[in-house]
Amino acid sequence: MLRGRWLLPGASLALGAGLGAALTARRRPRGDAAEGLLARLPVVPAVAAAGPPALPGSSELTKYGLPGLAQLRSRESYVLCYDPRSRSALWVIEQLNRETLSGTSDRAACDFLEDDSVHEYHRATNADYRGSGFDRGHLAAAANHKWSQKAMRDTFYLSNVAPQVPHLNQNAWNNLEKYSRSLARNNKNVYVCTGPLYLPRMEADGKMYVKYQVIGKNNVAVPTHFFKVLILEKESGEIELRSYVMPNSPVDEKIPLERFLVPIESIERASGLLFVPNILKRTSNLKAITAGSKR
Amino acid sequence: MLRGRWLLPGASLALGAGLGAALTARRRPRGDAAEGLLARLPVVPAVAAAGPPALPGSSELTKYGLPGLAQLRSRESYVLCYDPRSRSALWVIEQLNRETLSGTSDRAACDFLEDDSVHEYHRATNADYRGSGFDRGHLAAAANHKWSQKAMRDTFYLSNVAPQVPHLNQNAWNNLEKYSRSLARNNKNVYVCTGPLYLPRMEADGKMYVKYQVIGKNNVAVPTHFFKVLILEKESGEIELRSYVMPNSPVDEKIPLERFLVPIESIERASGLLFVPNILKRTSNLKAITAGSKR
Repeated sequence: MLRGRWLLPGASLALGAGLGAALTARRRPRGDAAEGLLARLPVVPAVAAAGPPALPGSSELTKYGLPGLAQLRSRESYVLCYDPRSRSALWVIEQLNRETLSGTSDRAACDFLEDDSVHEYHRATNADYRGSGFDRGHLAAAANHKWSQKAMRDTFYLSNVAPQVPHLNQNAWNNLEKYSRSLARNNKNVYVCTGPLYLPRMEADGKMYVKYQVIGKNNVAVPTHFFKVLILEKESGEIELRSYVMPNSPVDEKIPLERFLVPIESIERASGLLFVPNILKRTSNLKAITAGSKR
Repeated sequence: MLRGRWLLPGASLALGAGLGAALTARRRPRGDAAEGLLARLPVVPAVAAAGPPALPGSSELTKYGLPGLAQLRSRESYVLCYDPRSRSALWVIEQLNRETLSGTSDRAACDFLEDDSVHEYHRATNADYRGSGFDRGHLAAAANHKWSQKAMRDTFYLSNVAPQVPHLNQNAWNNLEKYSRSLARNNKNVYVCTGPLYLPRMEADGKMYVKYQVIGKNNVAVPTHFFKVLILEKESGEIELRSYVMPNSPVDEKIPLERFLVPIESIERASGLLFVPNILKRTSNLKAITAGSKR
């Protein structure tokens, strides 16, 4: 279960059944393996000839193209998957360690900038944020990338940004970012995946609704929550997983960060993403830290 | 502009500036061409070796995988891009012509079924729809695929379905599907792309919000609207584009279908998808039909 009612006043997260199942004991669901021909092929970036991609038996069907596919961006400091509908990222992954945290890069030399690799119809602009009451909240944090001015500057693309309540951005969320860096200094590597959530809640009619604000001329979506998944590589070789959810609202700094730990499954269900199957391909030595765990 | 206030009582579509720009005169925006290395590569399905995809310079960064990418499904009757967060499709493309419309396939022999190629966390089930008050609305329509029992059966995967108001499904939307078939009988080919929309509207506080219901244990998203884009290949070689939006609410059958025609740009902005740049790669002989056009 997601932690504590105070985290989501009046809201039910409704993330489905089976929350809190033991991660290491979890069997790979059948859906991972039993799929049709195309579904068995990982969808990966590849150099393609001009024209529509070669889908078996469907080249005629896709003659006029596929209207949308995953929009990956690989930058100095992160890999990002863009969500053109929300005008922000679905997820952003960074790698933190002692090297990436050391350096003299200066955030004063960075400005937020439009990501012109995104079609203008689906791109957030600085004007969208102006007067909205929301901060331009980094997903991959600027201070994680002191090692390279370019890496730091790349975090200022508005594709790596989402509208965030200023109090959250400047306090509890900032503390979570600092904590990620302290873990990176005391471990071999920390892989950080950050993204928005749009969580349903029950309304007076007893039905569940997703509701979120959109800002500016381009309707940039304001997430209801943010997640941050930390994959720690320890010197011992053990992999430790810590996954957090915070509401996009003011959060009292005095609440310990561990109160925002959630089972990874709740993030996987709500975000439409999967973390554990990929991690289990690399290691069987995985420990998931939840609020009850000894740290 | 989207047509008519009656289409969206009390709602502003807020699809951004520049609606109704002439399609054929439109220049490709800079974002199409000026991109980083990775962004220049189309993201296409490809057979990949085990392990994370090869992103230039980021193999270490993506050591534990990418949490989510485009989920394409190529089936007998359609190509579909799945949206694991909404538990439905982002878009579905079909090809209709005289051949696909003729045949003896029987819808009575078809049942709605879970798409077990989708991870169980992100999959809609029949139980999610039960008692919800919504129909299981086909995106690629069953009656479009009389040519093959398998093609028809494939339209019954719940990944090709979204919660639809029964009155709409059984009346105005059904009429739009019938109209698509009549066009297919009188042209060389009709490519049909169908999908959900989640449109913002202004609330009493003067701010814009996206709000939609979710149903069942798996929180299947109920679209606020549906789009249908018809790409007609005429015998003359001309390509004609007709794009429709209907609200997911009861729609009077007596309203002519042409009243639901919208500029393709409004669908492109709201859905996060692009149609015109792909079509213009195949033809320069494109005519967009909007409500004012002579049919």
